[in-house]
Amino acid sequence: MSGTAEEAAGWWRTAVSETGPDVIRFRGYPVEQLIGRVTLAQTVWLLLRGELPAGPQARLLEAALVAAVDHGPQAPSIAAARMAATCGVGLNSAVATGVGLLGDVHGGAGQQCMQLLERVRGRQDGGAALPDAVAAELAAYRERRAYVPGFGHRFHSRDPRRDPLVAMLAAAAADGVVPGAHLAVLVEVERQLGERRGSPVPVNVDGVTAALYCELGFAPELARGLFVLARSVGVLAHAWEETQAGTRIKGPLPPSFSAPYDGPPLRDLPGTAGEPG
Amino acid sequence: MSGTAEEAAGWWRTAVSETGPDVIRFRGYPVEQLIGRVTLAQTVWLLLRGELPAGPQARLLEAALVAAVDHGPQAPSIAAARMAATCGVGLNSAVATGVGLLGDVHGGAGQQCMQLLERVRGRQDGGAALPDAVAAELAAYRERRAYVPGFGHRFHSRDPRRDPLVAMLAAAAADGVVPGAHLAVLVEVERQLGERRGSPVPVNVDGVTAALYCELGFAPELARGLFVLARSVGVLAHAWEETQAGTRIKGPLPPSFSAPYDGPPLRDLPGTAGEPG
Amino acid sequence: MSGTAEEAAGWWRTAVSETGPDVIRFRGYPVEQLIGRVTLAQTVWLLLRGELPAGPQARLLEAALVAAVDHGPQAPSIAAARMAATCGVGLNSAVATGVGLLGDVHGGAGQQCMQLLERVRGRQDGGAALPDAVAAELAAYRERRAYVPGFGHRFHSRDPRRDPLVAMLAAAAADGVVPGAHLAVLVEVERQLGERRGSPVPVNVDGVTAALYCELGFAPELARGLFVLARSVGVLAHAWEETQAGTRIKGPLPPSFSAPYDGPPLRDLPGTAGEPG
Amino acid sequence: MSGTAEEAAGWWRTAVSETGPDVIRFRGYPVEQLIGRVTLAQTVWLLLRGELPAGPQARLLEAALVAAVDHGPQAPSIAAARMAATCGVGLNSAVATGVGLLGDVHGGAGQQCMQLLERVRGRQDGGAALPDAVAAELAAYRERRAYVPGFGHRFHSRDPRRDPLVAMLAAAAADGVVPGAHLAVLVEVERQLGERRGSPVPVNVDGVTAALYCELGFAPELARGLFVLARSVGVLAHAWEETQAGTRIKGPLPPSFSAPYDGPPLRDLPGTAGEPG
Repeated sequence: MSGTAEEAAGWWRTAVSETGPDVIRFRGYPVEQLIGRVTLAQTVWLLLRGELPAGPQARLLEAALVAAVDHGPQAPSIAAARMAATCGVGLNSAVATGVGLLGDVHGGAGQQCMQLLERVRGRQDGGAALPDAVAAELAAYRERRAYVPGFGHRFHSRDPRRDPLVAMLAAAAADGVVPGAHLAVLVEVERQLGERRGSPVPVNVDGVTAALYCELGFAPELARGLFVLARSVGVLAHAWEETQAGTRIKGPLPPSFSAPYDGPPLRDLPGTAGEPG
Repeated sequence: MSGTAEEAAGWWRTAVSETGPDVIRFRGYPVEQLIGRVTLAQTVWLLLRGELPAGPQARLLEAALVAAVDHGPQAPSIAAARMAATCGVGLNSAVATGVGLLGDVHGGAGQQCMQLLERVRGRQDGGAALPDAVAAELAAYRERRAYVPGFGHRFHSRDPRRDPLVAMLAAAAADGVVPGAHLAVLVEVERQLGERRGSPVPVNVDGVTAALYCELGFAPELARGLFVLARSVGVLAHAWEETQAGTRIKGPLPPSFSAPYDGPPLRDLPGTAGEPG
Repeated sequence: MSGTAEEAAGWWRTAVSETGPDVIRFRGYPVEQLIGRVTLAQTVWLLLRGELPAGPQARLLEAALVAAVDHGPQAPSIAAARMAATCGVGLNSAVATGVGLLGDVHGGAGQQCMQLLERVRGRQDGGAALPDAVAAELAAYRERRAYVPGFGHRFHSRDPRRDPLVAMLAAAAADGVVPGAHLAVLVEVERQLGERRGSPVPVNVDGVTAALYCELGFAPELARGLFVLARSVGVLAHAWEETQAGTRIKGPLPPSFSAPYDGPPLRDLPGTAGEPG
Repeated sequence: MSGTAEEAAGWWRTAVSETGPDVIRFRGYPVEQLIGRVTLAQTVWLLLRGELPAGPQARLLEAALVAAVDHGPQAPSIAAARMAATCGVGLNSAVATGVGLLGDVHGGAGQQCMQLLERVRGRQDGGAALPDAVAAELAAYRERRAYVPGFGHRFHSRDPRRDPLVAMLAAAAADGVVPGAHLAVLVEVERQLGERRGSPVPVNVDGVTAALYCELGFAPELARGLFVLARSVGVLAHAWEETQAGTRIKGPLPPSFSAPYDGPPLRDLPGTAGEPG
C-alpha cells in the first residue's frame, strides 16, 4: 500500500454536497435554507445541474416528472416491484427492483429521442432546413430498419400525456422561457412520420419529455435518470398497495396456473436406469 | 391449469391507476388534467394515499422530502451508486443499487421512530400524561439496551435539518393544519433524552420527518418509502457526477491501496506438495 | 479529515482473500492450485467457512445446491428475472433482480427452519427427550399461530426433493460423516406434524436442506445465502431463455390483458371543471 | 381484456424446467435423479444448454468458475455487497447488490473477448491464415483506439489464473475434448500484442475463460452470465464476513474521513438574505 490519507479522501471528492459536523449544503446552499423554500423539482434540478432553476423552468420539469409516474401493473417495472413486495423484503428493495428494470428498452427511449433531436439540431446548425434535416435523419432510421424512439405507443393511438406537455412547451417557447427549437424538431418528426404512414404516429411520453428535457438543457443520459425518479413514485405506490394486501410470494399468474413446458420430455439420467432417486 | 382469463387479469387488480387505450388515470384523475396543475409532492401523496392533499399538507411533505435528498458519498447508498456508475450499467441500475441499500439500518430509523411515537400516543390514549407515557417508553428502550431511533447523529451535534422542519411543523400545528400531538411527543422525547444524559440529544432527520409523517397520517412503513423517493434524487446526482468523470471500475479506495489480509497464511492445497498449478 | 492511510486501508481488511501483484489466494490457498483441483461446491465452502471440506461433506453440500436451482417461472424470483431480461439490461441485472427477491418469505424458510432445529437441539442439550423437545417447540408455533417453516408445500403433496436428500443425509449419518442429530429432529417434527393433522405434512426443500446445513455446521443465515447461490443458476437460465426469445418489455400478462382497476371512478381535478388538459 | 386463459399461461412457457404437483424436472430429468448424481457445474450446463455435459467438459467449466469467484474488496462488486450487508438488508440483497455491478465494464470483458475470438475464427473460415486474421482484427482495435478485451491487468503483470487454465485447455485440446481452435487464436493474440509492445501482455482471467467458453460452445453473452454465477460465491463470502463483524452503515472510508467538496462555496438562497432557515 503506497497511498496517502489525502489520496484516500480525495477519491470521493464531489461537487454535489458538502457535509461536515452540523453542516449539510447542496451545491453551496445550506439545507436549512432550502427546506420549505424550494420544491422537490427545483431540488432535483439543483443537485443534477448545480444551480437553482427559475420558476417557469422548474414547472416544466415538474410537469414532465408528474406525467411519467405510473403506467399500471402491466409495466414490468411495476409488476416486478409488486412481486418483490410479497417476498419478505423492505419497500426499499421493492423500489430498487422496479427501478432496476428501467433499462435501454423499458426506460431508454427518452434518451434515444434526445439524441435524435440533437442530431437534427446539428444538421440545422450545419445549414440544413428543418424539413430536410428531419428527412435525412428519418431516412437513416429506415435504412437500418430501426424504430424511431419517442413516437407511437403499443397501447395508445394518441398518448394522453402528449397534448398537455406539448401545449406547455409551446407556451413556454412563446414566452421566451425556452428556445423552442427542439420542440419544432419534434413536431416536424411527428408530421413526417404520419405523412409517410398515411395515419398519425403521435409523439409518446418519451418523445415529448425528450423535447422538454432538451429545451431545458439536460444531457440525454438524464432522460433515463429523470424517468427513474418519476417512475419510482408509481413503483412505490404499487409496492405499498401489494404490501397492504398481504399477498405472499406473488407469481405472475394465480397459483391455479402453471407455466407450460416445451422442453425435452421426461427422461432418465444416463446410467440410472430409472431407479428411485 | 384450471384458472380462467378473468382470474389471470384479476391477479393484477389495482386501485392506483387505470390504463387503457388513450386512458391513463391516477386514482381516478386523468393524467392530462394533472400535468402542469399538481406538484410532484402532491402526486406522491395522491398515488400513496388515494386523494390529493391540501396545499399546506403538501408543502410539509415536500419540505420533508427536500431535507432528505442527500448526505454525501460517505453514505453507503451514495457510494455504492457511484461505484455502480463506473461498472458499465445504466443510471437506472446505479439508482437501484443505492436505493437497495436503504434497509432497516441505513433507512429504517424513520419507520421505527414513527412506531415509537405511535406507541406513546397509544399510552396517552390509554390515559397516561405525556411525560409519563414518554418515560415509560424510553425505559423500555433502556431495559433492552436499544438505541432510540430518530435521535442523535454520528456526524452532527445538532442535525441542521432539525430546526427548520420542527419550526414548520409547529407553525402548521398552530394554524390547525396538523394536530400537533406527535410533534409534542417528539419534543418531549428529546427533552427527556437530553435531561438524562446531561447534554442535548437532538432529534435527527429521521426523527423529525417521522413526526411530520405521523402528523400527516402516513403509515410507518412509508417513512422508509418516502425516504427512498427523497434519497433517490441524491443517489442519481452522485451517480451522474461519477458517470461524467469517466472513472472505470471504482473501488472504495484508489488503486494504490489494497485490502489488508488477515486470514490463514499462504498454504499448499492438501496433496499437491506445492507443485505449480 | 483526521484519518490515516493505514486506517483507510484497514477499513477493508478481510480474511477471505488476499490479492496483490500476481497474487490471488483464497483463505491462504493460491488460486493457481485450486483451479482444476477443487469443485465449485468445495470453493463455496472454503470461502464461507475458511477451510476446505472433506469429500463426503462437499458432496452433501453439492446435492443441496443442485436440489434448489430452479422451480419454474411461477416463482417470483424467476419471473422477475425473465421480465428484467426484456427491458434492456444485462444478464447481471436480470440475475440481481431475481436474487433480490429471495427475501424472508420467498427464500427465508430454510434459515427459520435451521433456527427451529437448533432450538430443539438446545432443549435436548437441556435434558429433554427428542419427542418432548419437538412437542414443546411445535406448541409454541401453534400458540402464536405461526406456520412451521420447512414443512408442507403449496404445489407438492410430497416435495420430490425430500426423499433423495433425506436418504443421503441418513447414509452420511450412518457412515459417521455427519452426527445425524438434526436429521433426527427433522424427522420427528415431520412425524408429529403429520400425526396431529392426520395426514402427512412432508418436509419440503427448505426443511431438508436446513437439516443438511445444520449437520454440516453452517450458520442459519447461510441457509439463505446458499439458496441464493443455488437459485442463481435457475434465474440465469430463465433470463437467458427469455433473452434468446427476444421479447421486449415483458409484463406479467400478454398485451391483450390489462389490469382491472378498482379505485375511484373517473373524476375531474378540483377547480378544472373538466376543461381539456 | 380479450385474452384467454391459455394465452395467459402460455406467456410463461419454458423449456428449462417442468413443475407440477410432486413433479420437478430440469430439461426433462427428474430432480430426484439429479440430486447426489450430478455436480453443480453439470447442473449449470444442463440448465443453460439443455443437455448434460460429458465429464471432461464439465471439469473445464468448473475450473473456469472456480477461477473467478473472488478478487478481494477492491472490486466494486465485493465492496458494494459488503456495504449493503451493514445496512439492514438480507444476504440476498447484499448478493444482488454485488452482482448488479457486474456490468459491461466490470464483468463484460469476457463477452467482448469471446466476440473477438469468434471474429478471428470467422476470418479463418473465410480463408485467412491465423496470424493474418489476428493481425487484421488487432489493427481494427488500434484504429479505433480501443483496448483489447481479455489481455493485461491493472494489478497483475501475469494473471495467476492464466497458466493453469491455459494448461487445462491445451491438454483438453490434445485429448480431443475440445477443438482447440479458439485457444490457438487466444495465444496468437497474446503473442502479437506482446511483440508489438516489446513486453508481455498476458491473457487475463476474462480472456482465458473466454477461450474456454468458446471451446465449450457457449454463447458470448453467457461469459457474463457465468462470471455472475462464479463471482456470487465471493460476493456472498464477503457479505457474510461483514455481517459477522456487525458493522453498521459502512461507508467507503472510516467515519474519521469525509469527502472533500469542490462545488460552489457557501451561498445564500436568492431572496433569503441569509436569515436563519
